[in-house]
Amino acid sequence: METQSFLLEALTLAEEAASHGEVPVGAVIVHEGKIVGRGSNSREKSQDPLGHAEIQAIHEASKSLQSWRLIDCDLYVTLEPCPMCLAACQQARIRKVVYGAKDEKGGAICLGFGVHDHPKLNHRFQVLYSPMEACSLVLKEFFAKLRS
Amino acid sequence: METQSFLLEALTLAEEAASHGEVPVGAVIVHEGKIVGRGSNSREKSQDPLGHAEIQAIHEASKSLQSWRLIDCDLYVTLEPCPMCLAACQQARIRKVVYGAKDEKGGAICLGFGVHDHPKLNHRFQVLYSPMEACSLVLKEFFAKLRS
Repeated sequence: METQSFLLEALTLAEEAASHGEVPVGAVIVHEGKIVGRGSNSREKSQDPLGHAEIQAIHEASKSLQSWRLIDCDLYVTLEPCPMCLAACQQARIRKVVYGAKDEKGGAICLGFGVHDHPKLNHRFQVLYSPMEACSLVLKEFFAKLRS
Repeated sequence: METQSFLLEALTLAEEAASHGEVPVGAVIVHEGKIVGRGSNSREKSQDPLGHAEIQAIHEASKSLQSWRLIDCDLYVTLEPCPMCLAACQQARIRKVVYGAKDEKGGAICLGFGVHDHPKLNHRFQVLYSPMEACSLVLKEFFAKLRS
């Protein structure tokens, strides 16, 4: 129930990104039941290769909590994180990552970059796929519109 | 010769970081023979989990070149990039990464996260280890000082 509601919050951010012509991906970071960071993909507008939803949410959460260690924080994102974003979650000491749609082409898990459970790294965390059709639908609709 | 001189520029940035109490890592991004981005580790001061030298250099280079695609850009960094930073170079379309010291504990290559040559990813690039003793020495001295 909680997972669903936070994924829906992330979905709202993805839809906002789409309305600005950005590939629709959204993310929220939750600490003690409250959202402390939000992000949506903004790579085109910002011309920043790091303009992914997860990175923006991590930035915001670090500011909110005034720490680079996001202890007891969970990240909910509409699309499976890319290797950069999953590794950023590792750097930020995120506790759990939940995503609503798989990314077969660029997702860290699908590509075999499971940096979250590497035995040599000093922080390991859970990564869960919690399928939500709307998370992939928003992407399909965005690309269909682009093509037409 | 060129590699040496750009690694020395990165080393100067690493030394600056050390003087502010940060783990000494520095990076520069070079485009057509000119430095277009500089970065040094600033994680403690900024309390930003993304405060790595490479990330800062990528931000600066994207602003300089007004594009998220850092085409024909090479990154020189004193220490082997972590998985996040190597994947950020992949996202930014960096052409080549050169590092002066290995990171056995947290380096992307040492850990087996060679995101730079994954056959499924749409951008692949060179990663070169170009040993420079001063790059590891600056780290050794920093940690020796911390312990004493």
